[in-house]
Amino acid sequence: MAKQQKEKYSDFGLGDKPVSEGYRALNKDGSFNIKKINIPFFEGLNFFHSLVTMKWSHFFGFILIGYFIANLFFATIYSIIGVENLTGTEGMNPFEQFMEAFFFSAQTITTLGYGRVAPIGLPANIVAATESLLGLLSFALATGLLYGRFSKPNARIRYSDKAVIAPYQGINGFMFRVVNPQKNQLLEVEVSVSLSMKRENSELRNFYSLDLERSKVVFFPSLWTVVHPIDTSSPMYNLANEDLSKKDVEFIAMLKAFDESSGQMMYSRSSYKASEIVWGEKFVYIAKPENGKLTIDVSRINESEKAALNNQ
Amino acid sequence: MAKQQKEKYSDFGLGDKPVSEGYRALNKDGSFNIKKINIPFFEGLNFFHSLVTMKWSHFFGFILIGYFIANLFFATIYSIIGVENLTGTEGMNPFEQFMEAFFFSAQTITTLGYGRVAPIGLPANIVAATESLLGLLSFALATGLLYGRFSKPNARIRYSDKAVIAPYQGINGFMFRVVNPQKNQLLEVEVSVSLSMKRENSELRNFYSLDLERSKVVFFPSLWTVVHPIDTSSPMYNLANEDLSKKDVEFIAMLKAFDESSGQMMYSRSSYKASEIVWGEKFVYIAKPENGKLTIDVSRINESEKAALNNQ
Amino acid sequence: MAKQQKEKYSDFGLGDKPVSEGYRALNKDGSFNIKKINIPFFEGLNFFHSLVTMKWSHFFGFILIGYFIANLFFATIYSIIGVENLTGTEGMNPFEQFMEAFFFSAQTITTLGYGRVAPIGLPANIVAATESLLGLLSFALATGLLYGRFSKPNARIRYSDKAVIAPYQGINGFMFRVVNPQKNQLLEVEVSVSLSMKRENSELRNFYSLDLERSKVVFFPSLWTVVHPIDTSSPMYNLANEDLSKKDVEFIAMLKAFDESSGQMMYSRSSYKASEIVWGEKFVYIAKPENGKLTIDVSRINESEKAALNNQ
Amino acid sequence: MAKQQKEKYSDFGLGDKPVSEGYRALNKDGSFNIKKINIPFFEGLNFFHSLVTMKWSHFFGFILIGYFIANLFFATIYSIIGVENLTGTEGMNPFEQFMEAFFFSAQTITTLGYGRVAPIGLPANIVAATESLLGLLSFALATGLLYGRFSKPNARIRYSDKAVIAPYQGINGFMFRVVNPQKNQLLEVEVSVSLSMKRENSELRNFYSLDLERSKVVFFPSLWTVVHPIDTSSPMYNLANEDLSKKDVEFIAMLKAFDESSGQMMYSRSSYKASEIVWGEKFVYIAKPENGKLTIDVSRINESEKAALNNQ
Repeated sequence: MAKQQKEKYSDFGLGDKPVSEGYRALNKDGSFNIKKINIPFFEGLNFFHSLVTMKWSHFFGFILIGYFIANLFFATIYSIIGVENLTGTEGMNPFEQFMEAFFFSAQTITTLGYGRVAPIGLPANIVAATESLLGLLSFALATGLLYGRFSKPNARIRYSDKAVIAPYQGINGFMFRVVNPQKNQLLEVEVSVSLSMKRENSELRNFYSLDLERSKVVFFPSLWTVVHPIDTSSPMYNLANEDLSKKDVEFIAMLKAFDESSGQMMYSRSSYKASEIVWGEKFVYIAKPENGKLTIDVSRINESEKAALNNQ
Repeated sequence: MAKQQKEKYSDFGLGDKPVSEGYRALNKDGSFNIKKINIPFFEGLNFFHSLVTMKWSHFFGFILIGYFIANLFFATIYSIIGVENLTGTEGMNPFEQFMEAFFFSAQTITTLGYGRVAPIGLPANIVAATESLLGLLSFALATGLLYGRFSKPNARIRYSDKAVIAPYQGINGFMFRVVNPQKNQLLEVEVSVSLSMKRENSELRNFYSLDLERSKVVFFPSLWTVVHPIDTSSPMYNLANEDLSKKDVEFIAMLKAFDESSGQMMYSRSSYKASEIVWGEKFVYIAKPENGKLTIDVSRINESEKAALNNQ
Repeated sequence: MAKQQKEKYSDFGLGDKPVSEGYRALNKDGSFNIKKINIPFFEGLNFFHSLVTMKWSHFFGFILIGYFIANLFFATIYSIIGVENLTGTEGMNPFEQFMEAFFFSAQTITTLGYGRVAPIGLPANIVAATESLLGLLSFALATGLLYGRFSKPNARIRYSDKAVIAPYQGINGFMFRVVNPQKNQLLEVEVSVSLSMKRENSELRNFYSLDLERSKVVFFPSLWTVVHPIDTSSPMYNLANEDLSKKDVEFIAMLKAFDESSGQMMYSRSSYKASEIVWGEKFVYIAKPENGKLTIDVSRINESEKAALNNQ
Repeated sequence: MAKQQKEKYSDFGLGDKPVSEGYRALNKDGSFNIKKINIPFFEGLNFFHSLVTMKWSHFFGFILIGYFIANLFFATIYSIIGVENLTGTEGMNPFEQFMEAFFFSAQTITTLGYGRVAPIGLPANIVAATESLLGLLSFALATGLLYGRFSKPNARIRYSDKAVIAPYQGINGFMFRVVNPQKNQLLEVEVSVSLSMKRENSELRNFYSLDLERSKVVFFPSLWTVVHPIDTSSPMYNLANEDLSKKDVEFIAMLKAFDESSGQMMYSRSSYKASEIVWGEKFVYIAKPENGKLTIDVSRINESEKAALNNQ
């Protein structure tokens, strides 16, 4: 028994001291309200992570600025060497000449190489040969990153905005719904739900891993109502509606699945605080047959109706 | 016992309400007869999934059209800037000039850059430098997608067209056959089979996960006859031939394996309805020694012969 | 008990009928002596598998020939259109002109584009624009394949040439050795060993999965002696030396590991027939300390010495 | 019981003979003090592993040198064919002509192709067409390697410099701390700890796998104190401070996690010798609430304070 308690306690690496009343450990978007400080700059640096997780607009901005700066840099070098070492330049004044060098650099770094302007002599040729190598390697990296970002399973699992406490098989259950709004097939989907709440007469928090009616499905073609039955073994047993906010509960859900399109595992997270839990309602059935297909109305995922709870 | 029932029930995320008589949840090709509606456009969008799963002809069509439109777009811009900003153009009339701009664009976006035609002056150079960057990034994406599509394990597992109910070790068994027709080695192959059938006097359906004689093989070099023994613990126990269609059964099979060529997991699915199940036949043995090799005649995978069933 | 028998029987998907006396199901190199016939051409086709598993020399030959044929094809088209649509050609006779077209094609398909020769007019430009697109896509595929081949964990696990029956903890054991000769770190290494032998008075074969002293190691930095203890539960219990060839035994080993360099799972297979098993010898210890390091002499992996077996 | 002993013994593939007093099997950086000798050159060769694990400076050096040598090689060939087969060369003396050939080669291998210099005639064209193909394939490989290196989860888990023996739930525990200093999310993190120590009155070593308070966490957003409770089942039970060095203990830790950014598994290893273990101290709590976030001061990961141990 003690063993089991320990295991229940140990499922999430979130620490057991509360930050403040109403503190949310896991945000709705799956990020954590945790900050690590005093990390040496180079130890904390993870270019790959940043480049893969930044917004697309930032990513393209980053590439564009990098491209501009690289060309500026090489144009400066060609100008220092002397634009007369580039054949075919037609610039009359320093600015026009710099522009010729700039666009020659762009044609070199992309390995475009029209050749209207071309390097002549040792110094210009050395710089151009180096620049084209650098260009190939940089775009190699950009190629990989672009595809890495694009192929990353983006885990747009939609969770119902609220969870409910509803009647379930003679007792009651804690329930929320998940749906994959996209067309990619998710397989071997596993859900785990954890409950964090304040200990009685203490500032500390307990963490519990909740038993689920089912924690794994082989296919996930439609909608899944995740259910934690509130039986005598549940840490929610004997809790009343008002206890949820008093104990400052937080339900933390994690969903893990194999994404068939990308061939990768994907993870999704969300959480429910007391204010997002409705007591005594049940979710409405939103699947119906239509033209020989089972049709799921995803827009009704949050729809619930009053339901008398069982006494426990 | 109740626990076990629940687990058996919970294996597939397919809902328990029937759509119509004879409804097939899983099509032969592994897709589901399920439709999700009212999904906001951007939430449902998954470019990667679409580009990876569309037919090859559509994929190449998509690239070709994209290439054409991009060149049209940039040719228009070069025309607006003025074709006189492209050296070496030989177009006599507007159409010919536009064509020169169009093919100059093609030579720029592919970073081909013959240089017979080349940009001169600030505006044309800016556009060309941008276009070549765009070209590199677009082809980077196409590179990744092309390889992603090509390397995806394509799971061409062949299932026997029909399943049989045949004698098996003193009792009877539900059996079908699978073969990997390709040369790639599949390892650690797991099969799971689920049965969906109508409840008595109810519109609802039950789902059962079926126990198999073996559910995992380490190697899969030849043919595998998947067997569900119909013993007393089977939901098929005491069912007669005519019950299959009366209860509108659907057997759903999933096969999961590690594909050694691609280093990825692959999944395959199929299903059998009552009309695809033959009562009282057994599959014919189709392996024979030949020149020191075990030879499997894949074309005979569906071959079966009469076999007296055991009484149960 | 019956249950356990079944599981032992079911571990390998190799069929239970013998091909011939001395038949080897699994070759030393990990391939199977199994042939699938009568597979429709397109169903059996797996370009990816072929291109990833063929020899490097064949792979490069394939690319070289493809490159040559593509250029031949496009050179023919340019010749049909007329070489006068390529500026700068200097060919005097048809052969020289064809050569100009050929090398112009090579410069186009690689997006090299020197521009000494360049297309002029609609037809030549259309072909060149198409060819460069085709070139980009083809080299995209080649890029992916080349890297896919190169990064594939190549599983050069070395197995001892022979296995031994040696004394082991008061009883005897079946043992062979494995070593990873390369510098890449293998982690979470799992070995499974299966025994196939003829049934008494029957042509059929039994398959047994053998219990191992240890079947998994977290690290695999050095040498591993895989041991199957021949205790009363072993199918080898009470077998004598001469039974091995009489029963035409085949030991099939599979090793599975995570390859840290490539981040992929790798699999390796090998087998031992009766003639490769030495009765009453044990492997020699080949690790010794040297300059504070544990030094393993890999060349001595097969070294064994006489050892008196325990009576059982 | 005997069974369990065997399992405990068998967890790590490190051999059981000591190298020397104070020998460290696993270095702090995760490499092993093990050397494999007498491996045939080609069998031990693993280009991929070397290219993926070498330092970035070496990797770029390798590419740069390869680029230089390739150009030197092709420049020599063009010189042998005769620089007069390259149009537009302006070199006056042999050195200048070789330089023209060298940079022409660079423009060809990168598919830059300015065209100021271009091949003419059969021999030069054949070499140039081959070189550009070779260039495309080489840079394809470099592309893959560059991205493979860049996307590899780099496992910069930081382990506390020392481990402590601290009071734990009425008994004592062996503890160390781990933190992920980077922003990438690690999921399903598993830790295993093994203890190697000298047998009494023997030169041989025993290996034990240690039970942990928790061996897996679903999330790893902050800090984890890994705890082995020293209860009666622990191999450390009844050991005193001075026994640690007498028995020449080595604690070997492995951490395994799914890296969400790269979608790959990552592994990290470290070890503690007797001199790195502090007896009778406990780690200081270094998380505190700040602006509604839990703030972890990573720089204080090694901070510990005196703590009276429980008697056992």
